[in-house]
Amino acid sequence: MAWSRLTEPEHSGAAELVRGLGAEAALRQLLEGRVDWGPRLAPRLELLDIDREVGLLRRIRARVVIPGDSEWPSGVDDLAAPPHCLWVRGPLSLGDACERSVSIVGARSATVYGTATAADLAAGLCERDFTVVSGAAFGIDAAAHRGALSAEGATVAVLAGGVERPYPAAHEHLLAQIADVGLVVSEVPPGSAPTRHRFLSRNRLIATATLGTVVVEAGLRSGSLSTANQALRHHRVVAAVPGPVTSMVSAGCHQYIRDNGAVLVTDAAEAAEAVGSIGRDLAPVKRGPERVEDALSSSEDRVLSSLAVRRSVGIRTLAVQTTMAERELIACLGRLELRGLAVRDGDGWRKRPRPRS
Amino acid sequence: MAWSRLTEPEHSGAAELVRGLGAEAALRQLLEGRVDWGPRLAPRLELLDIDREVGLLRRIRARVVIPGDSEWPSGVDDLAAPPHCLWVRGPLSLGDACERSVSIVGARSATVYGTATAADLAAGLCERDFTVVSGAAFGIDAAAHRGALSAEGATVAVLAGGVERPYPAAHEHLLAQIADVGLVVSEVPPGSAPTRHRFLSRNRLIATATLGTVVVEAGLRSGSLSTANQALRHHRVVAAVPGPVTSMVSAGCHQYIRDNGAVLVTDAAEAAEAVGSIGRDLAPVKRGPERVEDALSSSEDRVLSSLAVRRSVGIRTLAVQTTMAERELIACLGRLELRGLAVRDGDGWRKRPRPRS
Repeated sequence: MAWSRLTEPEHSGAAELVRGLGAEAALRQLLEGRVDWGPRLAPRLELLDIDREVGLLRRIRARVVIPGDSEWPSGVDDLAAPPHCLWVRGPLSLGDACERSVSIVGARSATVYGTATAADLAAGLCERDFTVVSGAAFGIDAAAHRGALSAEGATVAVLAGGVERPYPAAHEHLLAQIADVGLVVSEVPPGSAPTRHRFLSRNRLIATATLGTVVVEAGLRSGSLSTANQALRHHRVVAAVPGPVTSMVSAGCHQYIRDNGAVLVTDAAEAAEAVGSIGRDLAPVKRGPERVEDALSSSEDRVLSSLAVRRSVGIRTLAVQTTMAERELIACLGRLELRGLAVRDGDGWRKRPRPRS
Repeated sequence: MAWSRLTEPEHSGAAELVRGLGAEAALRQLLEGRVDWGPRLAPRLELLDIDREVGLLRRIRARVVIPGDSEWPSGVDDLAAPPHCLWVRGPLSLGDACERSVSIVGARSATVYGTATAADLAAGLCERDFTVVSGAAFGIDAAAHRGALSAEGATVAVLAGGVERPYPAAHEHLLAQIADVGLVVSEVPPGSAPTRHRFLSRNRLIATATLGTVVVEAGLRSGSLSTANQALRHHRVVAAVPGPVTSMVSAGCHQYIRDNGAVLVTDAAEAAEAVGSIGRDLAPVKRGPERVEDALSSSEDRVLSSLAVRRSVGIRTLAVQTTMAERELIACLGRLELRGLAVRDGDGWRKRPRPRS
């Protein structure tokens, strides 16, 4: 908790010191003035008051999860500078929730197409037992959380500011709902404002706490692509949803599929397959409607193509058109008749009209 | 010409015989009754009249191109059973036109999004000196030809029936336009009806005469995917244009990108890069708008994030928020002031409001 108060996320010096000595011994070194970057933390050190933190936690109904706790999401340990602790609100176990989880991220200025797709994806992934992790931002993030809530699934909002501080303010109700049934999580302590740097750091948590990231809509410089970049860097699956080539908020998705090898996904089954475990999460292969012609042999097909609905065609003409022997022709016509596709008409044959599909 | 009259496309026996002996000697063998599948061609052989064919060619202003002619499109020689000849109408050299060519194919039941995209792609490829090859069908095919015509580019329609026979009939005017400035081509002789089998055979010509195939919209069992399959089988590039995941006529494109490694392309530059020659046809990398923040160092960014527009923030508070040394802080503030991003205000500093982009 002290380290979380004293340093900004991704402070590499603190990360190294804590990794080497453990948080307590590292803090002692700092307090004893034996750390060269220590003086910069002096203004924050003066304000540090752990008793007040504990009271604050109780007041905002939050808890602190530290590395090694059963609730710790192990994925974030892949980071060079993992969080010192996570401030958490909500009834789920963070570790369990992240074990089978997907992050769904995307543009704030999303389109109706994008938000509908994100909500469908989230609901479908929840039905497949995935936790949906996102950042509670406008647009795709909020749609993903709402889709998960609508499916009564697990959802985790990772914030760039303090967990007691609804950001954006318009999502106060959404974040309250998530804290009621899911989890609201942050690396920075209560009271912290969501600065730009903290947003970028937050994205690395979303990327590494989950098995994979699905980008739903993203412009070419969208912040959501920073989450995808972090996911790739840490060997997580990145998937992207395509959209119209005329939509600027799909351009980042298309570029990511083209240039960064993101998996193209069009629905929850495909997203689950992309990030899930092999065997358990295979998406069904999509098929078009079966057609009668699919079941025909190539000679049957050739004979059928030479028949007409409105006039009778004689065997002699069929022989010219199909270049088939007469015996073979007659056998074919018999099979087509059995399938209800051809009908005898005087000396020749006609095609039977079929109902339109 | 005789072989084209006597056999259907992809007749493997005839292909083998002609490959072994040459067309003339092979025909002699057939006429002498020394070919075991010869009797099936007897009904057509009876009707064969080469003098009449020559008169017909003149009447419909068509010509016949055979393997070895300078006009022969060499790509089709990759086929196991290449055409015996091609019936051609129009002023271009078929061989030259195909040398730098792309086929654009797709659904007959295309959407407005699909036809607009196909027309844009075709026009943009023509501007990049590609010939646009397609099948003159409703929907994507026609849009591709029209886009090429609108850019005054070269376009080739490959038909499943005779070249004198507009199919579909509603495209009579379009095909006349193409024959005027581009090429209308078929493997089957004048008078032939476009049967289902001939459509599939036609697709293999579109796939192999060109450097690559771009699928614009295609349902999951679209015939245009047969062209893409043929292109893949013969080591041509296959590209596909994405669309909304809610559109059934984009489902085949998405599946092809997912499962068959088609290149996702969103415009003519990307399509040209996919099928064109390395070096000549590189698509420009798409970039979003530049932002002021992109040029800031991470410490400048951290300081700027800690400033507010509406109130002044003192150095002491900034030191707590940024965990930066005071000297470093002041240098940073100076640089932000020079960039017009921060302004001194009493004892502290404010962020300068920026015009919205």
